[in-house]
Amino acid sequence: MSKITSDTPLSQALSQIAGRIDADFDLLLPIPDDARAPLYHAMRHAAIGGGKRLRPLLLTQIAAIYNADPDMALRAATAVEAIHVYSLIHDDLPCMDDDDVRRGKPTVHLQFDEAIAVLAGDALHALAFEMLSDKNIFPDPFVRGDLISALAIASGPMGMAGGQMMDLEAEKNNFDLPTITKLQQLKTGALIGVSVEMGAILGHVPLENRTSLNAYARDIGLAFQIADDILDVEGDEALAGKALQKDAKAGKETFVSLMGLARAKAQAEMLSNQAIGHLAGHGKEADLLRDIARYIVERNH
Amino acid sequence: MSKITSDTPLSQALSQIAGRIDADFDLLLPIPDDARAPLYHAMRHAAIGGGKRLRPLLLTQIAAIYNADPDMALRAATAVEAIHVYSLIHDDLPCMDDDDVRRGKPTVHLQFDEAIAVLAGDALHALAFEMLSDKNIFPDPFVRGDLISALAIASGPMGMAGGQMMDLEAEKNNFDLPTITKLQQLKTGALIGVSVEMGAILGHVPLENRTSLNAYARDIGLAFQIADDILDVEGDEALAGKALQKDAKAGKETFVSLMGLARAKAQAEMLSNQAIGHLAGHGKEADLLRDIARYIVERNH
Repeated sequence: MSKITSDTPLSQALSQIAGRIDADFDLLLPIPDDARAPLYHAMRHAAIGGGKRLRPLLLTQIAAIYNADPDMALRAATAVEAIHVYSLIHDDLPCMDDDDVRRGKPTVHLQFDEAIAVLAGDALHALAFEMLSDKNIFPDPFVRGDLISALAIASGPMGMAGGQMMDLEAEKNNFDLPTITKLQQLKTGALIGVSVEMGAILGHVPLENRTSLNAYARDIGLAFQIADDILDVEGDEALAGKALQKDAKAGKETFVSLMGLARAKAQAEMLSNQAIGHLAGHGKEADLLRDIARYIVERNH
Repeated sequence: MSKITSDTPLSQALSQIAGRIDADFDLLLPIPDDARAPLYHAMRHAAIGGGKRLRPLLLTQIAAIYNADPDMALRAATAVEAIHVYSLIHDDLPCMDDDDVRRGKPTVHLQFDEAIAVLAGDALHALAFEMLSDKNIFPDPFVRGDLISALAIASGPMGMAGGQMMDLEAEKNNFDLPTITKLQQLKTGALIGVSVEMGAILGHVPLENRTSLNAYARDIGLAFQIADDILDVEGDEALAGKALQKDAKAGKETFVSLMGLARAKAQAEMLSNQAIGHLAGHGKEADLLRDIARYIVERNH
């Protein structure tokens, strides 16, 4: 397998990391020869094949810049993706967003059933923490503890789960821009932020030197969500691999509904440039991170 | 607050640990002043007030026998209970067991709604790992890592989540006694087992000295589930605080359907005595553990 370096074109880097994450899930989820088999089939359906794998690329790139062990970085990236996939499975449930298509495939509750979808999400959630507590992969107990702590906080009620709760309330309330910003910083931003943080933990970057990395993560996280809101209005469902224009139908405020399309685009562009600015202290080793910041606002899905 | 010792009568020990777990959840779940408030209300509804708190008592008693720090033991016990509560919330969902009453209160999806129930379960799941990665409570990184690893494995696809998947399949298949035993060892046994294991981790009991503790946990875990199956047939719904006779209605095989009531009772009794036998190397400091083994098969709810 060729190495992803800062010279690798982004499209190639994304496809390479996708292959590695798929292979890692394949290794981690062998189908057992008993009645748990449907659970594993459902977990594999959701976790393998598809998705931009943006969070794993972020984590492994930050780790690579600081010369962290690539096997540790890959496994940590798979753990973050397991949390992301579990949240998508639960988000798509009929009682939540009630989606039929995800990553171009039927959602888990349609392909299997709702009960299996709830359990497959729960099992991937537990699997993420199981992966990070593997002493063979992460022998340093401080690193192990820091990774788990960061991921637990980012995915819990003070992070992603809290953001999803605010999102549910968004249908009933007309949230203003500061509230939508906070909602998205929790719902999407927390997991993007922790991808960067876990890369920094693996690279043994001291806390006091993480300011610009954290600022980069915050800016691309917000830019990512504004771009998502723009794509929800202007995007192509076939490319997105999921239903679009759902927020407007649900009566939810978004960055686009609150700022208008032109200002939302300008804001996303500004955040992308600002994110790149936070990498000024880095040389060409951070070129892929710069490409990611551009890609996030230029992507068509 | 008086100390729970091996002399404390079991009923008093259970009520004391229940109070402590309630207080710990109250401390951990302050209601935020934003749109996440309903999520926290739902988490508190499920986590505070009610439940036997058997897993926390087991964990804290094992920890006490080996002179572990009581604050660490309490927090670890709250983490196990958070996993137990999250599994009950998801188990009660309409797509799963579709239950209306739990611990004598309306289930979360009835009191709030289904979406909040899914999220409240997810948030308690993440919270458990967040609690265990708190360096202020668990300063030793090896202890922290071992606790998290043990809980992640016990609650994941190789433990509780796997058992729940087998349980879903139980409606469609006529499982035999070995399969039902394996199902229950995963679904209920794994979390009871990890309560004992986490107590042993906190007590720094070497792996090679945990054989009899593990055997005790395995026996009471199985006795607990056989007793549950007996109560499902013979119990009182008001005392149980949940619907009964559900397995028969769902056409699921149970220990009672496979062994008959008399043999199931004899088997539970045998396992309880066998569990007490595994404590032969301990003196009166293990009296509460002996009481728990008796209580598990004698309880009326």
